Amino acid sequence: MTERDIIACIKRHEEKKTADLFAGIGDDCAVLRPSDNKVQLITCDSLIESVHFDLSWHPPELLGAKAVSVNVSDIAAMGGQPRFALLALGLSRGCENWLDSFLQGFEERLQDYQVRLIGGDTVNSKGGFMITVTVIGEMDKDKVCYRSGAREGDLVWVSGPLGEAAAGLEICRNAPGLKNSYPSLVSAHLSPEPRLELGGLLARSGLVHAMIDLSDGLATDLAHICGASGVGAEVFQKDIPFTREFTGLARELGLSAFDWALKGGGDYQLLFTTDPENREAVTRLAVGSHRTLYPVGRMVKGSGVILCDGENRQDITFQGYEHR
Amino acid sequence: MTERDIIACIKRHEEKKTADLFAGIGDDCAVLRPSDNKVQLITCDSLIESVHFDLSWHPPELLGAKAVSVNVSDIAAMGGQPRFALLALGLSRGCENWLDSFLQGFEERLQDYQVRLIGGDTVNSKGGFMITVTVIGEMDKDKVCYRSGAREGDLVWVSGPLGEAAAGLEICRNAPGLKNSYPSLVSAHLSPEPRLELGGLLARSGLVHAMIDLSDGLATDLAHICGASGVGAEVFQKDIPFTREFTGLARELGLSAFDWALKGGGDYQLLFTTDPENREAVTRLAVGSHRTLYPVGRMVKGSGVILCDGENRQDITFQGYEHR
Repeated sequence: MTERDIIACIKRHEEKKTADLFAGIGDDCAVLRPSDNKVQLITCDSLIESVHFDLSWHPPELLGAKAVSVNVSDIAAMGGQPRFALLALGLSRGCENWLDSFLQGFEERLQDYQVRLIGGDTVNSKGGFMITVTVIGEMDKDKVCYRSGAREGDLVWVSGPLGEAAAGLEICRNAPGLKNSYPSLVSAHLSPEPRLELGGLLARSGLVHAMIDLSDGLATDLAHICGASGVGAEVFQKDIPFTREFTGLARELGLSAFDWALKGGGDYQLLFTTDPENREAVTRLAVGSHRTLYPVGRMVKGSGVILCDGENRQDITFQGYEHR
Repeated sequence: MTERDIIACIKRHEEKKTADLFAGIGDDCAVLRPSDNKVQLITCDSLIESVHFDLSWHPPELLGAKAVSVNVSDIAAMGGQPRFALLALGLSRGCENWLDSFLQGFEERLQDYQVRLIGGDTVNSKGGFMITVTVIGEMDKDKVCYRSGAREGDLVWVSGPLGEAAAGLEICRNAPGLKNSYPSLVSAHLSPEPRLELGGLLARSGLVHAMIDLSDGLATDLAHICGASGVGAEVFQKDIPFTREFTGLARELGLSAFDWALKGGGDYQLLFTTDPENREAVTRLAVGSHRTLYPVGRMVKGSGVILCDGENRQDITFQGYEHR
C-alpha cells in the first residue's frame, strides 16, 4: 500500500462536505468555518503499539473505536460537543490486513458522536503501529468546565464504578481464559465509553466547579484537579463504587480491588466537584439521565490526595497509572 | 522523566494566555475563540525516527524547528497564517538528553511564525522517537488557494530552486565529508524554510488558481494538482531551476540532478498555477517580495505529468518521493 492507497482507503470512510467544512481530506489543510459565538475545544491523544495496546488481543475495529473515544472523553470532560477529527497513523509492515477493520471501527465511532474526519497523515513506522488523533469540539464559552474551579468544601463525584478497565486489561494480559466470564470488564478496556452526554448535561447544569475524565486513575486525575485548583482532596475508601463483576474478579485473582480502582487508568468516567449544597440537584440530574453519580470525597484546604479508611489516612497523590 | 515532568518542561516553553486563548496546555482540552469572519486551516504531519530523520546527524534543535516548518508549509500552501499548534511526542529511552534542545528549536520556530503551543500528548514509544504536530491557521474565506483550481492553459510556477533538500539528505546519509562544502544543501534538508510570507502574498494577489507545497517532489505534487483539478501538466526540463551548489554536488557525486529535482521530497517550495496572461504580474509580485519565481510548465488537457525535454516526453506522474 502506498500513501495514496491509504488516503484513498480513508477517503472512502470520510463524510461529505457541508456548509461549515469547505475542504476535508485531500488538500494541504482542511478548511472549516467555526461556529459563531462558540469556543473551540482541542485535544490530541496518542496510542502506541506495545505501550497502550496489544494487537494480539485488541480487535482492530475496537482499537479504531477506542482511538476516537479517548479523545471524545477529553471533550466530554470540558462539557463540549466533538465536531471534527484528524488521524495520524504510523503503519508498520503487515498492518494492511487489518487497516480496513481499524478504519471501520474508527469511522463508526466517529459517526456515533457525529464527528467528521477532516485530515491527518500516514507514515511508515518501523517501531510498530502508532495512532495520534486530534479532535476539535465546541461549546458555549461561559459553560466550559475546567480543572481549576474546585473549592474547599466541594463534594467530589465520579460518574460510575471504577477500576473496570484496569481489571479488563489484567484479564487480557494475564488471564485470557476468564474473558467470557467477565465481558463487561474486558469491554471496559478494549472499547471504553466516553461519558459525552453526561459531560454536556453536567456542564449545562452550571452545578460543576471542576471536571476531568478518569484516564490515569482517581489518584492521579484528582491530583490534577487539586493542583490546578490550589486545594487538597480526601477520598473515602468506603464510598468508592465497584461492580459485582469487578469485586468478583479481584477475589478470583487474589488482587487488590482498591489498587485497580484508585490507580488503574482507562476508565474514562468523569470526575467532578460541586458545592455540597447541590448534592440533591446533582442526584436528580443523574436520575434524569439514567445514570448513578457517586460522591466519593471532598475538597479540603491544602494540597494532594488523601485516601481515608476510617482513621487511616494515606497519601495517594499522583499514584495513578503513568499513562505512557 | 515522568509525563508530568515532560509537560512541565513543555509548559516552560509555552506562551501566556491571551484574549483568544482561554486555556492552553494543562487541561483536558485547549480552549480558544476562533477569529470572526475567518475560516480555519488545519493540518497534521508526523515525523518518525529512522524514516524521516536520523538523530545521528539531525541536531535536535533543527529537528524541533523542522517539525514546525513542515506543518507551517501546509498552511502557507493554502495562503493562510498559522496560529496554534499541538505537539504529540512518542519518546524512547535516552531522549531526555536532547529533549530540551528539541523543544528549544520547536519553540523558537513557533515564535518565528507567531504560533502558540496549546496542547498535545507525551507517550512512551518503544520503537523510536516520533513527532506529530497539528497546526491550526486562519485566513479570509474567499482567498483560500486549493489544489483543485488549475485550468487548462495555466502556467505552472515554482517558488525557488528544486532538489536541494534531497541533495542535502544524500550528503548527510552518504557523503558526510562534504557537509562543509555544501552548507545550503545540508540546511535545506535539516531545517527547511516554509514559504509562509510568499504563500500569503500569492493568495491575497488573487492571481493563483491552484497551490500546493513541494513536500514529495514536483512529479508527485504536480500530479496532486492535476488529479484535484481534472487536468494534465507538462514540465519543461530546461526551465527547472537549480542552484550552482546543487549542480556542483550532482557532478561531484555523479548523480542525476534532474532525479533529485523532480522526485526528491522535502523542498517545501510552493508550486502554483496562474493564467498565462498574468505572467508579468506574478513576476512583479516576486520582485516586490525579493524572490524569484520560475515558470516550469503548463497545464494541459488530459491527466498526469509529462516531462518534456525537446522532443522527448516522459510520464513522471506520482514518481516523487513516497513521503513515508
